[in-house]
Amino acid sequence: MENDNTIRRMKTIEGHLRGVIRMVEEDAYCIDVIRQIQAIEAALNKVSSRILEEHLNSCVITAIQGSDKKERERVLKEIAEVFEMSAKV
Amino acid sequence: MENDNTIRRMKTIEGHLRGVIRMVEEDAYCIDVIRQIQAIEAALNKVSSRILEEHLNSCVITAIQGSDKKERERVLKEIAEVFEMSAKV
Amino acid sequence: MENDNTIRRMKTIEGHLRGVIRMVEEDAYCIDVIRQIQAIEAALNKVSSRILEEHLNSCVITAIQGSDKKERERVLKEIAEVFEMSAKV
Amino acid sequence: MENDNTIRRMKTIEGHLRGVIRMVEEDAYCIDVIRQIQAIEAALNKVSSRILEEHLNSCVITAIQGSDKKERERVLKEIAEVFEMSAKV
Repeated sequence: MENDNTIRRMKTIEGHLRGVIRMVEEDAYCIDVIRQIQAIEAALNKVSSRILEEHLNSCVITAIQGSDKKERERVLKEIAEVFEMSAKV
Repeated sequence: MENDNTIRRMKTIEGHLRGVIRMVEEDAYCIDVIRQIQAIEAALNKVSSRILEEHLNSCVITAIQGSDKKERERVLKEIAEVFEMSAKV
Repeated sequence: MENDNTIRRMKTIEGHLRGVIRMVEEDAYCIDVIRQIQAIEAALNKVSSRILEEHLNSCVITAIQGSDKKERERVLKEIAEVFEMSAKV
Repeated sequence: MENDNTIRRMKTIEGHLRGVIRMVEEDAYCIDVIRQIQAIEAALNKVSSRILEEHLNSCVITAIQGSDKKERERVLKEIAEVFEMSAKV
């Protein structure tokens, strides 16, 4: 199941984040902390991309092949929005 | 026509970029140059988003409503790819 | 103490991430999950910026005012590196 | 001279951008245009990083070793600001 895969990846990221919090608690070197945060962000980007891919291959196909024009527009607008946002985070 | 709009936006960005090159030639303050480059990147992100939106509402709808499964997969894969890349630039 | 502030922010992000994992477990709508992940990334960016600011105002000042040229170069190189990476995540 | 190098890189990017405008004028495939824009953004990120590196090794060292506390704070604040912005573009 695809969700299981996503959950597993996200729990790994959660563990990574907890590790970085521990680093800060133990007064680790700032730059090392920043690098670990950047690694977490890269991992989150990957999860997002996988989720979007799934979404395109399920909901988006269904909506576009469906007869509801409003729904089709909504689904495509959302993709444009998350694409635009992805450049900002 | 949508293309005209995109071309106009991109020519504005080209003018902006030429202005920044002039700033560097005239030894402008580094941080001001970096800020201008960041403004150009923000403008490029917006153009990209508009182009993707157009693409979703034309080629993507056509491909997904079409009967060619390979083509459908190709079109969706591309969107996932540019989404993933957008997080990296 | 600045560290306490950072730790508090990161624990909030950890809670947010756990919430998003729960969303996936409960089969939330993909786009909503992606938006939450993007919100987490924005929050991580802010934490990184605060940590860098702290670092600039402590270690970096000390290193640059110190007499060790190698150390000075190392510290500045690191900042350039995390800046370059920040554009990629 | 470092500036010459920066100017050369930026003129290459300007040429790249003009090429992409031509692509749009000739109705190139949307996704190809988006990919080229992303390549331009990656190149701009590299230029920014080089400029920041230069800046750190010149103005920033001078300011921090100088006796003007206000100037020191200003210079460090700017770096924190462009770092924060770099995550958003």
